[in-house]
Amino acid sequence: MQSFELNRTDIQRLKQALESGDEELKALLSEYHASEIAILFASLPQESRDHIINILPSETASEIIAEMDAEIHPERILENLHPERRSEIMEELDYDDATDILSQLSEDTQNEILSDLDEEDASHIRNLLTFEEDTAGGLMNTQVLKVNSRLTKTEALDQIIRQSEEMEEFYTINVVDDKNLLLGIVSLKDIIKSRNTVLIKDLIKEDFVYVKANTDQEEVARLISQYNLTSIPVVDDRMHLLGRITFDDVIDVMEEENTEDILKISGVSEDEALSGNWQEAVKSRLPWLVVNLGTAFLASSVIRHFEPTISKLLLLSGYMTMIAGMGGNTATQALAVTIRRISLSDLTDNQAYRTVLKEFTVGLINGACIGLVVFLFALFYDGNLMLGLVTFIAMTGNLLLAGIAGSSIPLILKRIGIDPAIASSIIITTFTDVFGFLLLLGLASKLLL
Amino acid sequence: MQSFELNRTDIQRLKQALESGDEELKALLSEYHASEIAILFASLPQESRDHIINILPSETASEIIAEMDAEIHPERILENLHPERRSEIMEELDYDDATDILSQLSEDTQNEILSDLDEEDASHIRNLLTFEEDTAGGLMNTQVLKVNSRLTKTEALDQIIRQSEEMEEFYTINVVDDKNLLLGIVSLKDIIKSRNTVLIKDLIKEDFVYVKANTDQEEVARLISQYNLTSIPVVDDRMHLLGRITFDDVIDVMEEENTEDILKISGVSEDEALSGNWQEAVKSRLPWLVVNLGTAFLASSVIRHFEPTISKLLLLSGYMTMIAGMGGNTATQALAVTIRRISLSDLTDNQAYRTVLKEFTVGLINGACIGLVVFLFALFYDGNLMLGLVTFIAMTGNLLLAGIAGSSIPLILKRIGIDPAIASSIIITTFTDVFGFLLLLGLASKLLL
Repeated sequence: MQSFELNRTDIQRLKQALESGDEELKALLSEYHASEIAILFASLPQESRDHIINILPSETASEIIAEMDAEIHPERILENLHPERRSEIMEELDYDDATDILSQLSEDTQNEILSDLDEEDASHIRNLLTFEEDTAGGLMNTQVLKVNSRLTKTEALDQIIRQSEEMEEFYTINVVDDKNLLLGIVSLKDIIKSRNTVLIKDLIKEDFVYVKANTDQEEVARLISQYNLTSIPVVDDRMHLLGRITFDDVIDVMEEENTEDILKISGVSEDEALSGNWQEAVKSRLPWLVVNLGTAFLASSVIRHFEPTISKLLLLSGYMTMIAGMGGNTATQALAVTIRRISLSDLTDNQAYRTVLKEFTVGLINGACIGLVVFLFALFYDGNLMLGLVTFIAMTGNLLLAGIAGSSIPLILKRIGIDPAIASSIIITTFTDVFGFLLLLGLASKLLL
Repeated sequence: MQSFELNRTDIQRLKQALESGDEELKALLSEYHASEIAILFASLPQESRDHIINILPSETASEIIAEMDAEIHPERILENLHPERRSEIMEELDYDDATDILSQLSEDTQNEILSDLDEEDASHIRNLLTFEEDTAGGLMNTQVLKVNSRLTKTEALDQIIRQSEEMEEFYTINVVDDKNLLLGIVSLKDIIKSRNTVLIKDLIKEDFVYVKANTDQEEVARLISQYNLTSIPVVDDRMHLLGRITFDDVIDVMEEENTEDILKISGVSEDEALSGNWQEAVKSRLPWLVVNLGTAFLASSVIRHFEPTISKLLLLSGYMTMIAGMGGNTATQALAVTIRRISLSDLTDNQAYRTVLKEFTVGLINGACIGLVVFLFALFYDGNLMLGLVTFIAMTGNLLLAGIAGSSIPLILKRIGIDPAIASSIIITTFTDVFGFLLLLGLASKLLL
């Protein structure tokens, strides 16, 4: 299969097949990978999703449900399914996927669904449901390939083949002792290469990376990315092996965290679903706008204070919006670069200092360049040299301050343990509004009147 | 080794060891993983980096260089090394890493370095240098595990073990014919499980995902993430196997693309290095500010047009900044959600339509809520009912338009093939400035004077 992008034709064909009957529908669906069907689901109504899940083999159906974006609510399909069919599908799901989906349902519904499963599956999932969603425990799969360190190569290989039957993919093999304490990892390559009588404990790699169940998911993502790991074992406080997290879960976490960063920096609550409805969006954004309204009153009070000045030189109104606007954009630029830098790695004191110094310099230079244009405009269009000087100083000063504020505020927030992305453009731009008005109108009242 | 974060203590210890002599330095460095040393390098001057690379075994040295962030210039270390030492390190580097680093140097320096390598290595790297950096060809490693479909299980396993000696990690095994045409893939698990006499061609999985060398790296990342692949084979137009791309390369691409998105949305040129110097930052941001200045003149000219109105009701100045500012922030919110949504998946016409409709609704409701507060303020603080009504209408109208503009502009840009992220907050906020001023001042001049 060559890589291809899903497009409108795919959706139209699917909708036609839905009307033509089950045989045609099955034939069409067999052309797609489960993850592709999961994407197409976004364009289908709930009843069509339920119908497709019902007519496909439970293995494919469970893959589709596992791949569905949380935003299009795979749990609703589970709710709607006939209990018997639902249990069939639940049994095919990996425990971590099943847990993620169940966690979206009410406790009563969870219990109802779990009571239909066999004892072992249900207890695995119940256990996973106790971990916080955004920790290693919430992310891990408890189905994990492990061998006892006492085994010989041949015994271990038998174990691995047997265990891997129930597993989609495996990458590294965990080595444990009789009490399930994690001793290290071993690669399949090293096992195959060794003589048949070699013991696993002689092949073990003891220098490996692992995480505790309560480790934050961002930290897990950082480790997998930094050490280029396909999977990372999860242990409890006494080093008992609990599960593993694979790189593909981490790719999803990274997308999620990046979405949160972009949203927060733009004054949107981090848990607004991208495809959520308008009620959700209002709930997520209105509080930020109200905060912004408070700061806007502040900027507005500066203007009110200088009303006598404005009344004597109405031209100032037009310059006010330019100076405030350019300041806001300069601050947003500095903010974006700084927040992104912090989110990719921690900065030392020295690096933080140099970052602010750099943004100071950039603000100064950009401010002077932009200020010069505005100066020339005031001089030649409005024919007012002093007005030109005042606007030049106000523009340069405001952009310089914008650079300092845009870089130092997120750095300070990070140091005192607050998420730097909440220093969103909303907060920072009002900051530059107030300062820009103060500078322009204050200078004007002293120098121009 | 448990997961840990590098902190200032690590850097101080390293700096001390650099002064204490090579033996102590080596002892300290042995405590760290190569990728950790690569991170610590960011805090060291060039000469200390060069020194550390010189005293470590070439295997570790090459790992550090491969893991170094492109922004801290691994190629400078290569330039500074003694040619003999350099060749030792180059031989240890994976071809794709070597190519990435060399591509940062002048063609002369590239040729000088390549002429010291053995013929085979040099020709592999020369070949990779011909691919565009942001395509599959530029991302791939040409060292790839492959077996001929004619082999038996036992022969194939021998081949795999022999080939994997030179490879860090492998995940899937590519199956080729005598002419190196890619026929499919096979998992190590399936090979191990089978009888010794089974032929590889009976185990082959023909339904697999691959990419052409000129496929864009974002598309590669999307496929690896969508199909949860550890690696993806790269082929030429006639299906000859050229190399493979692994998930860890793709994690780096994703971080890169996400950085670009955040920067562009904030009006920073996408290729500004996060840790670049101020010259680079001025070059990357000043052009955007100049564009913004042009649009700011536009907003300012609206105000100039209404000077007579403002002069009669100076209170309007304070409201102007509030209405324009809130509009800008509402547009930024809609923009962030829409751009992030587009970058995670393509939207159908219907989804695009519903997105704009949603943002219209959100803008209307948030506008009415915020407008109500401003109405009450004008009524009770300024004692002017009509002013309150005008500000209410202007606020609601501007936030409604902000929602439509923030969502529809990136969607339209995407449809006509322009990167939607250039509809940065800079452009959109001036749009709402102009409209907000027009609405408030236009209404005021009709209704209040």
